[in-house]
Amino acid sequence: LVSRLPQVGTTIFTVMSALAAEHRAVNLGQGFPDFACDRALPDAVTRAMQAGHNQYPPMPGIPALRAAVADKIEALHGRRYSADTEITITAGATQAILTALLAIVHPGDEVIVLDPCYDSYVPNIDLAGGRAVRVPLAPGSFRPDFARIGAAITPRTRAIITNSPHNPGATVWSAAEMRQLEDLLAPTAVVLISDEVYEHMVFDGAEHQSAARFAGLAARAFIVSSFGKTFHVTGWKVGSVAAPAQFTAEFRKVHQFNVFTVNTPMQHGLAEYLQDPAPYLQLPAFYQAKRDLFREGLAGSRLRLLPSAGSYFQCVDISAVSERSESDFCQWLTREIGVAAIPLSAFYGDGFEQRVVRFCFAKKEATLRAALERLRRL
Amino acid sequence: LVSRLPQVGTTIFTVMSALAAEHRAVNLGQGFPDFACDRALPDAVTRAMQAGHNQYPPMPGIPALRAAVADKIEALHGRRYSADTEITITAGATQAILTALLAIVHPGDEVIVLDPCYDSYVPNIDLAGGRAVRVPLAPGSFRPDFARIGAAITPRTRAIITNSPHNPGATVWSAAEMRQLEDLLAPTAVVLISDEVYEHMVFDGAEHQSAARFAGLAARAFIVSSFGKTFHVTGWKVGSVAAPAQFTAEFRKVHQFNVFTVNTPMQHGLAEYLQDPAPYLQLPAFYQAKRDLFREGLAGSRLRLLPSAGSYFQCVDISAVSERSESDFCQWLTREIGVAAIPLSAFYGDGFEQRVVRFCFAKKEATLRAALERLRRL
Ligand SMILES: CSCCC(=O)C(=O)O
Ligand SMILES: CSCCC(=O)C(=O)O
Repeated sequence: LVSRLPQVGTTIFTVMSALAAEHRAVNLGQGFPDFACDRALPDAVTRAMQAGHNQYPPMPGIPALRAAVADKIEALHGRRYSADTEITITAGATQAILTALLAIVHPGDEVIVLDPCYDSYVPNIDLAGGRAVRVPLAPGSFRPDFARIGAAITPRTRAIITNSPHNPGATVWSAAEMRQLEDLLAPTAVVLISDEVYEHMVFDGAEHQSAARFAGLAARAFIVSSFGKTFHVTGWKVGSVAAPAQFTAEFRKVHQFNVFTVNTPMQHGLAEYLQDPAPYLQLPAFYQAKRDLFREGLAGSRLRLLPSAGSYFQCVDISAVSERSESDFCQWLTREIGVAAIPLSAFYGDGFEQRVVRFCFAKKEATLRAALERLRRL
Repeated sequence: LVSRLPQVGTTIFTVMSALAAEHRAVNLGQGFPDFACDRALPDAVTRAMQAGHNQYPPMPGIPALRAAVADKIEALHGRRYSADTEITITAGATQAILTALLAIVHPGDEVIVLDPCYDSYVPNIDLAGGRAVRVPLAPGSFRPDFARIGAAITPRTRAIITNSPHNPGATVWSAAEMRQLEDLLAPTAVVLISDEVYEHMVFDGAEHQSAARFAGLAARAFIVSSFGKTFHVTGWKVGSVAAPAQFTAEFRKVHQFNVFTVNTPMQHGLAEYLQDPAPYLQLPAFYQAKRDLFREGLAGSRLRLLPSAGSYFQCVDISAVSERSESDFCQWLTREIGVAAIPLSAFYGDGFEQRVVRFCFAKKEATLRAALERLRRL
């Protein structure tokens, strides 16, 4: 066999979680909550299974869940998507992004990603037969540099993938930045894949600026969401995509031949649970408390805190603590100090080093305190 | 947007299910059971959710489910796959097949399919950048024609997709046929994708001849299974792939960037349920009774029954009943007679016509009797 992805190994998240388990380290590497979801959610799934909702749902998702997604986007961002022709339920956000790329990328097309970026984007572009063009976010601040993005757009540019709130950088794009992107793309036919899986984790009163709020972006965008991240059930693998009808039609052509459709009882449970907006409206405060606890706990240490305006991640600069590379530091931290983290270099194509590592604070207070106690020894 | 799949519309199964719903027809079109699964299975899922198994499972699937799959293959087919390095849990069989193709097909590679074939195969090959080479099964009998398959193999042939028990033809490959395939592929590097989702539906005492039983095939095969089909939960979207370690390594590279992983509570429920082999060992008799009921019900009609040795499908020749094309007949049958079926032409690249349509008999006795009463009016 000749590999289609010769440069790819096992994702860094799997590698670090395995290392954390081996060394009984507190796992602040891979992003997932270590606390329980709201009991109402599995209870709704159980009722759906007992009611016999165990066979194929409609290919794009059950109508009730698509309608709930459309209603939520309208309530939060003021744009009405058609549940029939513009919303599709996916087996998580990663499947949504691959499927969108398979639907739109033709051999040799270019797709712009902004480094650091989530580790599935570039392999996804490769698998779709495209070529990834990596444009760095501003080092240190992780903010978009529109001059550099503009310079990267060519007649071959098919799409750009953005991600706000940002993993791993924890930045949140402002409305002004979204409008700059809108202006930049206006004269082009570039498709936007807007990864908004951390949409409900924004802090200090900031607002998530969904691409749905900007007409010029929404008209060209696949907007990707994740129920797993929003409702603390990352293992359920259910997400959604909102996109104009023509985009959705092409998306579904591929979707039906990838997963065909998505777990029926989970869809029913989520449709019921989404009727109440309180769980996701409470999420900013819920996660801000965790962020603040974690930041305060590190305030006296020699780990320099970078801003964390959104997502459930906190980046820290390790220069004052260690001379190791990010990657070596994370290995050492896991083995010797007992806390797992993710090296930022894993999100760059060329392994670019800033001596920054990422912690996930989507953890129980006890977990965060246990990690802090160990980290303060540094 | 320029379509990546210009020739593709909505799958025939979705189209016919929608038409059946519109006309309140008995839906024997799309293949799915209309009866409940064993209560023990959702109960096990509920326990898993309550026990907190709601976050990401390990990327290739939970160890207990992979071990259960390896044990089952060993018990039934005498080959030991490593749960660690050779079994991967997938979001259903369709995702497994696309993922295998994305992992092995390079631009311009040829992949052989045997017509009639399941409607995802050819779009999957297209999406992977390959070229589908359609070789017909023998018309009428749907048996493999090894001379024609052999003639289709070129230096560019990367893979062949087989499917036994066969959808839609309801044939089951004999051990002799499997050996013929083994001999034919022996001098080549052609990969086998063996779609065995109907493995537990074989009738009249016949045995399913998994590729796992033939060393020369197993060494080059992705063997694809479906828990949804075996346990009457098509909406759960969980399947598995068994393949040699090197194949599995490439498969997982793609899998981790497609769905990443598969629904955690369903995996726990299935792992527990698989401890008892009775449910799948009873499946041949269970479905044979349905097949026999359906065949006996049609025996006096002018629909000519083709053999059904496996799968949950029954093909019939309509020549004595109607002059319509298969497709027009299925539309008419749904609207006027109130029974939905699938035209065989939908499984051929060129719409080849044999005046044959497919019924699914994975239905409650009452459903089958209601359909038979209507069909006997023909
Ligand atoms: C799919 S495992 C990785 C989870 C995640 O989004 C992250 O840690 O960045
Ligand atoms: C994925 S819907 C189609 C179900 C099926 O396998 C069939 O009807 O052939």
